[in-house]
Amino acid sequence: MRLDIAGTRELLPLRDNYLLLTHRRPDGDTLGCAAALAMGLRAIGKSAYLLENDEVTERYSSLVTGLYAPTDFCPDAVIAVDIASTDLLPDNARAYAENVWLCVDHHPSNTGYAENLCLYAERAACGEVIYELLIALSGGIDAAIADALYIAVSTDTGCFSFDNTNANTFSVAARLVEAGARMGEINRALFRSKTRGRIAVEGMIYSEMEYLHGGRAVIVALTNAMIDEVGATEDDLDNISAIPLSIEGVDVGVTIRETSATNECKVSVRSSPSVSANAICGRFGGGGHAQAAGFSITATVAEVRERIIALLDEILGGNEVAQK
Amino acid sequence: MRLDIAGTRELLPLRDNYLLLTHRRPDGDTLGCAAALAMGLRAIGKSAYLLENDEVTERYSSLVTGLYAPTDFCPDAVIAVDIASTDLLPDNARAYAENVWLCVDHHPSNTGYAENLCLYAERAACGEVIYELLIALSGGIDAAIADALYIAVSTDTGCFSFDNTNANTFSVAARLVEAGARMGEINRALFRSKTRGRIAVEGMIYSEMEYLHGGRAVIVALTNAMIDEVGATEDDLDNISAIPLSIEGVDVGVTIRETSATNECKVSVRSSPSVSANAICGRFGGGGHAQAAGFSITATVAEVRERIIALLDEILGGNEVAQK
Repeated sequence: MRLDIAGTRELLPLRDNYLLLTHRRPDGDTLGCAAALAMGLRAIGKSAYLLENDEVTERYSSLVTGLYAPTDFCPDAVIAVDIASTDLLPDNARAYAENVWLCVDHHPSNTGYAENLCLYAERAACGEVIYELLIALSGGIDAAIADALYIAVSTDTGCFSFDNTNANTFSVAARLVEAGARMGEINRALFRSKTRGRIAVEGMIYSEMEYLHGGRAVIVALTNAMIDEVGATEDDLDNISAIPLSIEGVDVGVTIRETSATNECKVSVRSSPSVSANAICGRFGGGGHAQAAGFSITATVAEVRERIIALLDEILGGNEVAQK
Repeated sequence: MRLDIAGTRELLPLRDNYLLLTHRRPDGDTLGCAAALAMGLRAIGKSAYLLENDEVTERYSSLVTGLYAPTDFCPDAVIAVDIASTDLLPDNARAYAENVWLCVDHHPSNTGYAENLCLYAERAACGEVIYELLIALSGGIDAAIADALYIAVSTDTGCFSFDNTNANTFSVAARLVEAGARMGEINRALFRSKTRGRIAVEGMIYSEMEYLHGGRAVIVALTNAMIDEVGATEDDLDNISAIPLSIEGVDVGVTIRETSATNECKVSVRSSPSVSANAICGRFGGGGHAQAAGFSITATVAEVRERIIALLDEILGGNEVAQK
């Protein structure tokens, strides 16, 4: 049954022992929503826990502290938050797939698997829906709930910079700050801080990247020696293949990285819609999505770079001289 | 005279030909405020223009399009927006320093130079004050004004990520989006893409920054030769002083930049709440906000660096050896 906020609010007093589910590769929205809802349900005298999600990263680990269900917990109702389909349930949640009593979500693609569905597809973050639900339930929220919902809303909108951000997002953020969300601290941790190692990696990449075809293409070539020189960890190197596409005018970014094996490289290609990353990688036996693909190859970084340059000349036309 | 929004609103119908002043090295806040106020005054039938500011960069040039005063414009009132002191007036605005009829501002350090002062120091951006003023004046704003104020508010808060962001900032942002601010487009242009020049500047800074006191302090020292080498424009250098504080563990970041004058530097200091940027700059005759301040000094970059290191040793304790 489809329910609005008011209808969903009426459900919550009906059961006593709630188990809350989060999705695979959990992000700030699913975890922040589950944490906030658990605390809100406890505030009205319910027993409420999150089902353990073993993919929670360090970044969000504080959200689930003290909220995981003990092994002997016997729920009388299961709630899924920010989960569009049962395919997105972690393995340990599969057993509940057919018995989700309530799903609160913002994904238009929600498959309607739950007995009751509270879906607001126009919301940027599921956290906005949970906020309204908790206000309807209790009239207010405490600072810990505000923190959890601020993390949900801010992470799903790239700290209010993504296109999904809207007037409601800002209004909810205002109320969360009024309720005591420690936004300064949260923003610094999630959006405004980089490790010294990451700074060193970006410094190296920014200084060494090679622009071709008048800046339409960028090649970043990283050897193990370069990575060792700046002392970067795997965390510091996270998502570096996204860097070239953040530069104005770049349509295709190729990141070549030497693996630990001799003479082997992993290559990531990112592109704007005018170029097919998938087609480029297909030429080397790899693939992926249209705008994000990759491949592995037995060759040195220098050899791969040469072959990529030749392919880019073929695809983008001309034989421009590479310029740093 | 100190005036609140209601009192300031009463002033605006009193004159007919307004000249609006912006500050040196104009940012999104001063320009967005001036543009919005000019459009708002025109909407109630006034003649209103911005005094040309020849330091406006490409990044913000669209804000002033069509709003500069013709050379024969004869104002009967001068309004300064986001200008804490007459020292911050561009050279061509100096003649008006003693005759500013109204100043709308959010800097606690405002010197009270204007005949009438509308100062809300708790606002993150002056754009929030101008928003309230225009609502008081006309009851609403159009999409072009919303764009200008969105630029003002978003740029002064680092797209809602800086510590100055508060509930009022978010509430105003919600209203601006409702009024038609083209947030997606503005965010992409201002926050989500970097120029090749900016990438080169960041590469240089990331590679050259100096960590002191176990990483609690960072010094970035930029000579004109370094800037020339990467071919950076003023836009590329925008807000570089915020970079050091984005590194984990850094409590104070000092950016020293050579000016075009021989032997002169501008220094920006940013700090976490555990250190007073204002106090540091006060020691050199400068000042600003507690966590963001600056000063100018007659000395070489190397000399300033030495003096800053000595002061940091005094403030942070110890005499650690600088490490790159």
